[in-house]
Amino acid sequence: MSAPFDDKLHEECGVVGIFGHEEAAKLAYLGLYALQHRGQESAGIVTVEAGRFHTHRALGEVAEIFSPEVLERLPGPSAIGHTRYSTAGDSALANAQPLLVDCNKGQLALAHNGNLTNASLIRAQLEAQGSIFQTTSDTEVLLHLLARAQPARLEDALAEALPAIEGAYSMVLLTEDALYALRDPHGFRPLALGRLEDGGAWVAASETCAFDLIGAQYVEEVEPGCWVRLDRNGKRAHRFTPAVPARHCIFEHVYFSRPDSQVFGRSVQLSREQMGRLLAREAPADADLVVPVPDSGVAAAIGYAAESGLPFRFGLIRNHYVGRTFIEPSQQIRDFGVKLKLNPVRQLLEGQRVVLVDDSIVRGTTSRKIVRMIRGAGAREVHMRVSCPPTVSPCFYGVDTPSRNELIAATHTIEQIRGYIGADSLAYLSLDGLRRALDENPSGPTRFCQACYTGEYPTPGLDLETAAVGRRCG
Amino acid sequence: MSAPFDDKLHEECGVVGIFGHEEAAKLAYLGLYALQHRGQESAGIVTVEAGRFHTHRALGEVAEIFSPEVLERLPGPSAIGHTRYSTAGDSALANAQPLLVDCNKGQLALAHNGNLTNASLIRAQLEAQGSIFQTTSDTEVLLHLLARAQPARLEDALAEALPAIEGAYSMVLLTEDALYALRDPHGFRPLALGRLEDGGAWVAASETCAFDLIGAQYVEEVEPGCWVRLDRNGKRAHRFTPAVPARHCIFEHVYFSRPDSQVFGRSVQLSREQMGRLLAREAPADADLVVPVPDSGVAAAIGYAAESGLPFRFGLIRNHYVGRTFIEPSQQIRDFGVKLKLNPVRQLLEGQRVVLVDDSIVRGTTSRKIVRMIRGAGAREVHMRVSCPPTVSPCFYGVDTPSRNELIAATHTIEQIRGYIGADSLAYLSLDGLRRALDENPSGPTRFCQACYTGEYPTPGLDLETAAVGRRCG
Amino acid sequence: MSAPFDDKLHEECGVVGIFGHEEAAKLAYLGLYALQHRGQESAGIVTVEAGRFHTHRALGEVAEIFSPEVLERLPGPSAIGHTRYSTAGDSALANAQPLLVDCNKGQLALAHNGNLTNASLIRAQLEAQGSIFQTTSDTEVLLHLLARAQPARLEDALAEALPAIEGAYSMVLLTEDALYALRDPHGFRPLALGRLEDGGAWVAASETCAFDLIGAQYVEEVEPGCWVRLDRNGKRAHRFTPAVPARHCIFEHVYFSRPDSQVFGRSVQLSREQMGRLLAREAPADADLVVPVPDSGVAAAIGYAAESGLPFRFGLIRNHYVGRTFIEPSQQIRDFGVKLKLNPVRQLLEGQRVVLVDDSIVRGTTSRKIVRMIRGAGAREVHMRVSCPPTVSPCFYGVDTPSRNELIAATHTIEQIRGYIGADSLAYLSLDGLRRALDENPSGPTRFCQACYTGEYPTPGLDLETAAVGRRCG
Amino acid sequence: MSAPFDDKLHEECGVVGIFGHEEAAKLAYLGLYALQHRGQESAGIVTVEAGRFHTHRALGEVAEIFSPEVLERLPGPSAIGHTRYSTAGDSALANAQPLLVDCNKGQLALAHNGNLTNASLIRAQLEAQGSIFQTTSDTEVLLHLLARAQPARLEDALAEALPAIEGAYSMVLLTEDALYALRDPHGFRPLALGRLEDGGAWVAASETCAFDLIGAQYVEEVEPGCWVRLDRNGKRAHRFTPAVPARHCIFEHVYFSRPDSQVFGRSVQLSREQMGRLLAREAPADADLVVPVPDSGVAAAIGYAAESGLPFRFGLIRNHYVGRTFIEPSQQIRDFGVKLKLNPVRQLLEGQRVVLVDDSIVRGTTSRKIVRMIRGAGAREVHMRVSCPPTVSPCFYGVDTPSRNELIAATHTIEQIRGYIGADSLAYLSLDGLRRALDENPSGPTRFCQACYTGEYPTPGLDLETAAVGRRCG
Repeated sequence: MSAPFDDKLHEECGVVGIFGHEEAAKLAYLGLYALQHRGQESAGIVTVEAGRFHTHRALGEVAEIFSPEVLERLPGPSAIGHTRYSTAGDSALANAQPLLVDCNKGQLALAHNGNLTNASLIRAQLEAQGSIFQTTSDTEVLLHLLARAQPARLEDALAEALPAIEGAYSMVLLTEDALYALRDPHGFRPLALGRLEDGGAWVAASETCAFDLIGAQYVEEVEPGCWVRLDRNGKRAHRFTPAVPARHCIFEHVYFSRPDSQVFGRSVQLSREQMGRLLAREAPADADLVVPVPDSGVAAAIGYAAESGLPFRFGLIRNHYVGRTFIEPSQQIRDFGVKLKLNPVRQLLEGQRVVLVDDSIVRGTTSRKIVRMIRGAGAREVHMRVSCPPTVSPCFYGVDTPSRNELIAATHTIEQIRGYIGADSLAYLSLDGLRRALDENPSGPTRFCQACYTGEYPTPGLDLETAAVGRRCG
Repeated sequence: MSAPFDDKLHEECGVVGIFGHEEAAKLAYLGLYALQHRGQESAGIVTVEAGRFHTHRALGEVAEIFSPEVLERLPGPSAIGHTRYSTAGDSALANAQPLLVDCNKGQLALAHNGNLTNASLIRAQLEAQGSIFQTTSDTEVLLHLLARAQPARLEDALAEALPAIEGAYSMVLLTEDALYALRDPHGFRPLALGRLEDGGAWVAASETCAFDLIGAQYVEEVEPGCWVRLDRNGKRAHRFTPAVPARHCIFEHVYFSRPDSQVFGRSVQLSREQMGRLLAREAPADADLVVPVPDSGVAAAIGYAAESGLPFRFGLIRNHYVGRTFIEPSQQIRDFGVKLKLNPVRQLLEGQRVVLVDDSIVRGTTSRKIVRMIRGAGAREVHMRVSCPPTVSPCFYGVDTPSRNELIAATHTIEQIRGYIGADSLAYLSLDGLRRALDENPSGPTRFCQACYTGEYPTPGLDLETAAVGRRCG
Repeated sequence: MSAPFDDKLHEECGVVGIFGHEEAAKLAYLGLYALQHRGQESAGIVTVEAGRFHTHRALGEVAEIFSPEVLERLPGPSAIGHTRYSTAGDSALANAQPLLVDCNKGQLALAHNGNLTNASLIRAQLEAQGSIFQTTSDTEVLLHLLARAQPARLEDALAEALPAIEGAYSMVLLTEDALYALRDPHGFRPLALGRLEDGGAWVAASETCAFDLIGAQYVEEVEPGCWVRLDRNGKRAHRFTPAVPARHCIFEHVYFSRPDSQVFGRSVQLSREQMGRLLAREAPADADLVVPVPDSGVAAAIGYAAESGLPFRFGLIRNHYVGRTFIEPSQQIRDFGVKLKLNPVRQLLEGQRVVLVDDSIVRGTTSRKIVRMIRGAGAREVHMRVSCPPTVSPCFYGVDTPSRNELIAATHTIEQIRGYIGADSLAYLSLDGLRRALDENPSGPTRFCQACYTGEYPTPGLDLETAAVGRRCG
Repeated sequence: MSAPFDDKLHEECGVVGIFGHEEAAKLAYLGLYALQHRGQESAGIVTVEAGRFHTHRALGEVAEIFSPEVLERLPGPSAIGHTRYSTAGDSALANAQPLLVDCNKGQLALAHNGNLTNASLIRAQLEAQGSIFQTTSDTEVLLHLLARAQPARLEDALAEALPAIEGAYSMVLLTEDALYALRDPHGFRPLALGRLEDGGAWVAASETCAFDLIGAQYVEEVEPGCWVRLDRNGKRAHRFTPAVPARHCIFEHVYFSRPDSQVFGRSVQLSREQMGRLLAREAPADADLVVPVPDSGVAAAIGYAAESGLPFRFGLIRNHYVGRTFIEPSQQIRDFGVKLKLNPVRQLLEGQRVVLVDDSIVRGTTSRKIVRMIRGAGAREVHMRVSCPPTVSPCFYGVDTPSRNELIAATHTIEQIRGYIGADSLAYLSLDGLRRALDENPSGPTRFCQACYTGEYPTPGLDLETAAVGRRCG
């Protein structure tokens, strides 16, 4: 949506699956609708009815792509859907998901959130053996591994293929008669199961906010290292690899997930308020009011204000009609890009000492503009507070991060960053504080992947120097 | 945007004018961009260059309508623009503004925010004399009055024509060599003048948020009953009718205007926070937390929380990717329409006594759903607080209001409304409280139109029984 | 269709009207479909049902514009339609017809084939009196004259307004309860009445080929200087001006009308074959074969071959998939534009002496390319024969002609033209021959307008020097 | 174009290739433009520039698909293009060609005219081995065979793969540095080589009419059983299989190819005139005039008229603005579908005995309507003459034929067909006559595939009973 002018990391995909509902495509559509914050560039749905697959994928936002006419052409009681953030380019539509292929295991449709870290290697091997790839997506390698697997039964083929792939994957896989929900051994990305109130129909989705919209009840998370098969006989779970420690993406709680979702078993909104509270304890400020950068900083700012006792005020107003094309006069307007989205309330900021709360700083360019805009509106002091630790390492597990050089915290001290963004003070929440906010004892073992703050990657073969491989999602 | 599922009154138009800038169309576009909350159904821009007019009008949102290619076809140093909320239908595009006609006063382009209460009468007279109308819009009558006016000079024609029209009008009128900004004698709707920082170019706009985006400075409001002519010789103001008491639309501060705008000389955001504070004093609640209905109730909720000492929490999350088509499964989902836009945070609401703050209740249908949704998320009590008085009368001055029968407060007691929406308690801010929040002494004369709360209309010939005439804007 | 590369005069409009059929819009659509050769740039239909008018007008070809969905939105038992050739530009859609206005005579829809030669003068007078025009079309003046006419009854208003306009007009006018078919006193353009086989429904159309497609029977021509009213009581004709000699456009038979139409009471195809026969008698050639320029020269070439005894051969093949955009490599291809439409059959032309037959030469540019292409394919001699006299004067009665300077025959001798187009010989049919081909005695009075061959215009105030006024159609 | 209402066999593809021209995409576009009669449903072009491939494929007509903007995104000095007739459906775009894949032989783009008769078998084998197909097209099997071929060099892989496929294929194959033109051993479908006049750039195309448009000279046909490689070193031909007797599709001369093309070394137009002449000798008629069914019957009718001495007349006029959607009133119009395309000239047919000439009768439905229409226009007798033998067997070599049951001549005698279509007499050209018209001695061996007239298929494993396998092109 606001890609050109924000300075955020981007979650790259959301997935949804429906089994056993006569309007499966509509429910999948609504699930994608609720998951759009995980990717607004393309979306797709595949359904199956009586052995016949139907598919529609397109560039654009979910509500533009799926008209009533389109949904009517997607009949059947089971469906999977995918929404994707991707870089522009010719390959955008070809790489849109779900992928749908016809192979010797039957027709298979697959939607993936995450990133396979050894996809390039496997692809090169398969191509040498004569396989022809349709996309440049890492996801497709799993389909080729399944097609090449010796066993004729899909589940046996999965047992052969899944151990070969590494990295992050929360997937939904649709066959003629079943829906599989898969999750990698570490459980990097979320994947939850729910059930419609009226019983019967099953739902799998990246986040529980998709359940809320369609009136489904949360049942459980798909266990890392397991797949769950949903078919007319109900639910059957299978562990395809020995259990290893979980490495849930901690940034889902900091920024990615919708605040009304429950992710990795916790309320995201409460996590963020708690980050704000602990940030207020770790880094208090002598100020007059607390102002969030909307919308990402709102929950932490509420927590900061409550803990510090400072008044919470909406000093920045967000424009809700942000379009895709940004036309700027040639005679440049200062901080134009940020102004398209945010406007300060001068009468509220004038002469004040402001605590400005945001969830993260990536390159620092947007923070610099916002601080300048707030000063331009008359603020006397600006104290920037960030509700997570400095982001120093790129992600290889399905998040679109700039290269390490572009991460301002990878190459600058906090004092240098403060100088760059022009704040009077700057503080980040500590990693210990972040873990505490998520109810984890910082001196004990962790269940989170914190690689973006530490550079320590849970899967083999990745380090900051070599890991230039695709960071694409699904 | 979210028209089908909200229960709000709708401002019907925003206008903008630019004089003396080589990229007038781009600035007009950005002005409309900032004013989109005043109308998202259609938009248009007319420019003039060396005596030649250029125009583009279309249905849709501003950023969709004006591509770089379109803007390039709109050359010239002066421009006016219009954005409009309108009911659907065949006439939508034909009625889009600015209107552009060729008449014996030359080519004239006109954009209007407001509603002429005697338009039907004048139109009937003109048609009887052989005039042919192009639109069903009330605005067009002014153009015909100008074309029929005896004097050859436009300003003399204005002097003859303006006294004939009644009602609300904040207009920008573009001629070959000048831009006029006009405002009706009561000043119902806002209209402000600004100037670009670099000097020279003038800007007129419905709200000051349009100035902020393009880097213009607020200069002053256009005086009610006056027009301001902007041309190469600068600014010239002219009073076309004797001064009468102002009747500014009080609902601009309650809901319509953007919180970051300064309207009728006051910050909207501060007005709303103050409404919340006074509401907390007038109608306190024995509760655990204060939750706004986003986004309209946020500022008042902040004020209410600050005054009451109760914690402010974001218990309802808004989906920012709301599309235009709403596809619902045939097996209905409870409160589906509201869920598309709002989702409660269960973990935050569970077991709590909630003060729910919104800016207004029109029909009550949406409030009923929200209260039910909050209870469904586990809230123990819901105390609804509304930051203005009960809305009992339709508006005839440019606001799209339902008929009196549909206004729940026109036909029900507050206790009946409370019962209907299912709240544990319900309270509105008093009219005195509202005026106080706007720094007016409630026992003195008022400068506001309060007809929607009182049924007393400032212009002649209107009363609740007869006034079924067009309430269309511009 | 192939406008950019042809060198033809263009008929500018076709009109159709339907009264008394439950699918009036569909029949009007099919009528326009059959009349597309009279204008492919825009089309429109207006219907009326129970006093409510419905309209759809758009740029493009008839079959693109009217989808089943569009036609469903045009209910009602009566309809008029218009198809138009026009120069491109912003005003194209605004000027598309039928025009539909609401005035003191009720709602009126009007479609016009022809051109009013005094429209500019009338318009200036009306604007001075305060009328506002919606279009730049000459047709609109009639609507304003009707709106300003004193009598309240439409027919009385027609009696007042029609004598004021001059020039060519074959019109259909739709009111709430009747369809009028009007024709100017000279009957420049055709207008025929037909009736559906099943009785009841009436059809008016520019050409009878429209009747054939919808299964209607030809009844009669609308008399020049008369209108015919079709309503629930049947047909009623009225002469609105004393009879004057007919001046039918002779070029309708030479080129404009479809060969399968009956126009001014004669078969067009038979007229053209007869022109070819008389041309063979007037201008024989010592040659091996007769080749038409397809499709316009086919009928005359058949006549020429039959009369001369030379073999008729299709030596030029037409490409039927000619699109609207013509993309040419920058490294130019000789005679590219003509090649897109026509390709010679080398094996048929090689070494032959060819009689090349076409219906007319306007600028000569295309003829020059075709002659060159035929020589390039190996023809030994090329003898060009044209089935009408040299075109020396522009038309002001609804045909799009270039200015006099651009008409090659206006400024060059036949020998000079022969040299320019590179033919071995060149001959035109004489005006006497043309009249004879239409069964008229050349020494008697004529019923045809021959101004394009003679420069003598049947209406006052027009001559070759002054007549730069609009030549636009309807 | 007019598919829904014609009763023709459809050629299913045209291919074009360009090597060594800086505007290769534009030339490929123009080539496709000239070849559109071979397929109007979809088209595509692939170019390569400095090792990077660019592609655009879409549904629709060539001129709609390739705008200047699209062509600019197709840079590079070599290109291949494809135009396709296909049945509608979801798979239409996925199956559009050229196919472009990335495999271990590099990137390969392939366009195919013809049909592989053993594609299903090979595909099943490849899928069993784990290959994943992207399309349902027969063409893709060749790409998989190449990808799986042991040799690393493409030409060695071709040597391994080509002998495995059977059926009809005229193909162009584009690699990073060369263009290959391939033709099956029998040479079913045409494929010619040409060269631009300015030297250097090579062109391959299904028909020579593509050369004419872009100013290229015909060089030679690609030999059956050979490929020709065009690269910066010029042209190199290679025979990949021992020579077998040619089996050129005889129907290319009867109907498919454009009359201005030279196909299998002969002028198509002259072939058709000759068919008409021999038909007049074999089956004379006692009649007044000869009327073609335009456009397919024109050349044969000219020959028939010349040989018989009867006058040639255009008694049926074709509407050139035939659209894609056909809207018919619910109150049906007799022979509506045919009327959309053809209209009789009553004044020419009335009271006449007509010889009606067409190139073929497939189902007989259209002929029946045309005969009825001609009688309805007043003809006294209708003698139908067909310029080829009765069509009794489906084609498996790239032509879209109905199943045998639907071929009226497969199950009816000529007398029965005459009765069905309602003609006074009916005669077909004999197979001997057809061969004679193509300058072949009917008592000697043939170089043509005549399977549609005889049921004898030149490739193994096909007979009328079993051959229900895909008849799809490319």
